[in-house]
Amino acid sequence: MRVMGVDPGLTRCGVGIIDAAPGARPRLVAVGVVRTDPHEQHPQRLLAVEAGLTEWFDSYRPDVISIEAVFAQHNLPTVTGVGQAAGIAMLIGARSGCQVAMHTPSEVKAALTGSGRAGKEQVGAMVARVLGLAAPPTPADAADALALAITHLWRGGASNRYAAAVARGRS
Amino acid sequence: MRVMGVDPGLTRCGVGIIDAAPGARPRLVAVGVVRTDPHEQHPQRLLAVEAGLTEWFDSYRPDVISIEAVFAQHNLPTVTGVGQAAGIAMLIGARSGCQVAMHTPSEVKAALTGSGRAGKEQVGAMVARVLGLAAPPTPADAADALALAITHLWRGGASNRYAAAVARGRS
Repeated sequence: MRVMGVDPGLTRCGVGIIDAAPGARPRLVAVGVVRTDPHEQHPQRLLAVEAGLTEWFDSYRPDVISIEAVFAQHNLPTVTGVGQAAGIAMLIGARSGCQVAMHTPSEVKAALTGSGRAGKEQVGAMVARVLGLAAPPTPADAADALALAITHLWRGGASNRYAAAVARGRS
Repeated sequence: MRVMGVDPGLTRCGVGIIDAAPGARPRLVAVGVVRTDPHEQHPQRLLAVEAGLTEWFDSYRPDVISIEAVFAQHNLPTVTGVGQAAGIAMLIGARSGCQVAMHTPSEVKAALTGSGRAGKEQVGAMVARVLGLAAPPTPADAADALALAITHLWRGGASNRYAAAVARGRS
């Protein structure tokens, strides 16, 4: 299974692709960031996010997109841009009939470190350890995207096993 | 000039198209609502908003899209969906090189009624009066979309005249 993690953002959108086979350590396929120019108009920046994420999606053809669930709390204009970038990632997945999953920041922290309140450094360190990397990927958005992909692998896998068990119980 | 007003929303997205010629009353071209099924998954609903708004855009080929500027304040999941629907309207405009403008709810109220705190009924009544309609269009999202189009005509027109005067002054 190939998972594309997306840490949504208008200025920097982290993207991380991992491959996973049963019983094997997840493997890093590619990681990077889609950037847009803060001097551009907002609609043009959304267009650039769409173009960038579409290029990643088309290049790596993931089975699942795992996106950070966005909540508005403070810094409202930023949250709007982040939510819109997340919406664009959802659109790209839905267009291709790809599975789209959302995970909250605390789900990601808990899945990677065992604590929903872990810091960025701890999450980055665990991403490096899980994927067998010498150091956490930078910038933080790239590491977060991989953390979202790993979270889906672990949590999504569990839900899938549960769903499969329910289906077996019904038949 | 043809203006497409969009009152963004995930469940109901109001759309209103008006035509305007200098010195003439703005004319209603079409008004309606793009709806999505609340039982569908979020990514599929965003896809339905995109398909619906694209159909309106392609059918009426506006010169400008005027979209309500969304601010997160309360009811967070709704605001996320509203912001994403607004982002999709921006994307559709940007893809076609169409002018995209944002107007806040209080700008719309002030433009239509003279007061930034006017109620929905007052705005709807003014939309009907400006366009020479027997009654405000329903649902409210449809009337709001027309109000956004009218606001852009009046406010955008003023800015354009200003920009033209500045350009003349320079040359």
